[in-house]
Amino acid sequence: MSRAIASTKSPDAPPKLTEALEYAVFPGGARIRPTILTTVALACGDDAPEMTDRAAAALELIHCGSLVHDDLPCFDDADLRRGKASVHRAFSEPLSVLTGDSLIVLAFDVLSRQTPAHSERALELIRILSRQTGPPYGICAGQGWESEEKINLSSYHRSKTGALFVAATQMGAVAAGQDAEPWYELGARIGEAFQVADDLRDVMLDQDELGKPVGQDDLHARPNAVAEFGVSGAMQRLKDILGGAIASIPSCPGEAQLARMVTLQAQKITPNIKKTSRV
Amino acid sequence: MSRAIASTKSPDAPPKLTEALEYAVFPGGARIRPTILTTVALACGDDAPEMTDRAAAALELIHCGSLVHDDLPCFDDADLRRGKASVHRAFSEPLSVLTGDSLIVLAFDVLSRQTPAHSERALELIRILSRQTGPPYGICAGQGWESEEKINLSSYHRSKTGALFVAATQMGAVAAGQDAEPWYELGARIGEAFQVADDLRDVMLDQDELGKPVGQDDLHARPNAVAEFGVSGAMQRLKDILGGAIASIPSCPGEAQLARMVTLQAQKITPNIKKTSRV
Repeated sequence: MSRAIASTKSPDAPPKLTEALEYAVFPGGARIRPTILTTVALACGDDAPEMTDRAAAALELIHCGSLVHDDLPCFDDADLRRGKASVHRAFSEPLSVLTGDSLIVLAFDVLSRQTPAHSERALELIRILSRQTGPPYGICAGQGWESEEKINLSSYHRSKTGALFVAATQMGAVAAGQDAEPWYELGARIGEAFQVADDLRDVMLDQDELGKPVGQDDLHARPNAVAEFGVSGAMQRLKDILGGAIASIPSCPGEAQLARMVTLQAQKITPNIKKTSRV
Repeated sequence: MSRAIASTKSPDAPPKLTEALEYAVFPGGARIRPTILTTVALACGDDAPEMTDRAAAALELIHCGSLVHDDLPCFDDADLRRGKASVHRAFSEPLSVLTGDSLIVLAFDVLSRQTPAHSERALELIRILSRQTGPPYGICAGQGWESEEKINLSSYHRSKTGALFVAATQMGAVAAGQDAEPWYELGARIGEAFQVADDLRDVMLDQDELGKPVGQDDLHARPNAVAEFGVSGAMQRLKDILGGAIASIPSCPGEAQLARMVTLQAQKITPNIKKTSRV
């Protein structure tokens, strides 16, 4: 990440855009997606750590770019992100559009800078990341569903939240030289869990704890698991999904460690899980 | 292009975003950049035409995406593009942001779908395209200069207009298995010529001929070669730059044909060139 952002600095670059890029990426949030990616790569033997690092950085750059665009006035119009002013509030709307665009481009740039020994892996990582970012299955499509009168709920959640978790597990496996396909389900289930956890956080935390405005789902009339199942119903659903996620882990050297990581990440994203369950 | 756009259609994708993507790309403008790319590839032997097609499509997808974002209310706030309503007027601002994002992602996706025989070329094409799109040298940086109080004019023009012409000549060469570096100057000079031609068009044509609002440079207080040199001064400058462009063409089998193409493209972009000169 640091190398990617440093590469944008130059007397030939407009200083505010360079500053906005750094602001959008540092200090980071929980960095959950690159952590999952790296843990999967380790579980698969991690025979090309430089490739894994690049994959993790690329994935987080896409995630940061998507947050910058999601916060724009025409979407969530969010004043806060990660406990500080959103990019369009701290800089401007034009710089916010360009920051998101630049982070998307940088993600693919990072993946393309490979040694010839790993060209095939690099190209497959680019294919996975583009598939989980662009339409029809990626986060752009997920955000696009919010412009429809009639939402396909399962497509919406899978693409809006699930896509980058599928990218995390599949890119981790591919960075370590393994097939992507067996790792789809783990990513999809972590994505579902994250969605339910996010719905719980949106309802249960206050703005200081969350680092961004609360009650956004209600405000934007977005579907929310808590509205559908109630708090305890949503908590049960989260437990079930995490159980399924762990059961779906493909057989690999680091299987047990990976299961622990999924549980730990689940505890991180939902403060209440610590008190009520130890999935 | 058609294949890339078709790949976004699915019952899992939000229909309006899919429609907006098609609207932003078809019918096209002059398709100058992919024409230059393809002509350079042909001049270099074009031993992998499928690779050339993908490179040309990727470059035009980036260009179309940049137009969609440039037209946004926070930038040019343009009502018209290519003689029809701009994407944010025809659809909405959220869909316009997502359309631009999606087109950027699709560009890299198109390049990543290669046969293993050409993996190295594909990765180099991705590196060139990302360099000429993102900061510090690409079109995002070019647009970013418009948010600065003090503009570095040569960096501004080189990145805002020149970058995708450099991408065109370098990607054409690389798609055909040649080195990128000797093709930098041709791209940069075509970019300069295009910038001067665009300045002339902005001042001299009416809205119907241009297919977008005129007088935008004046309105946005952007630097303009006509304001600096006058119409006949700017025309002379255009002639000089084109002469330099043709002189810079690296030695290759299709050198003469390439020189003709540069002249033809120059005539296309500046209606007055037809009457006043035959560079």
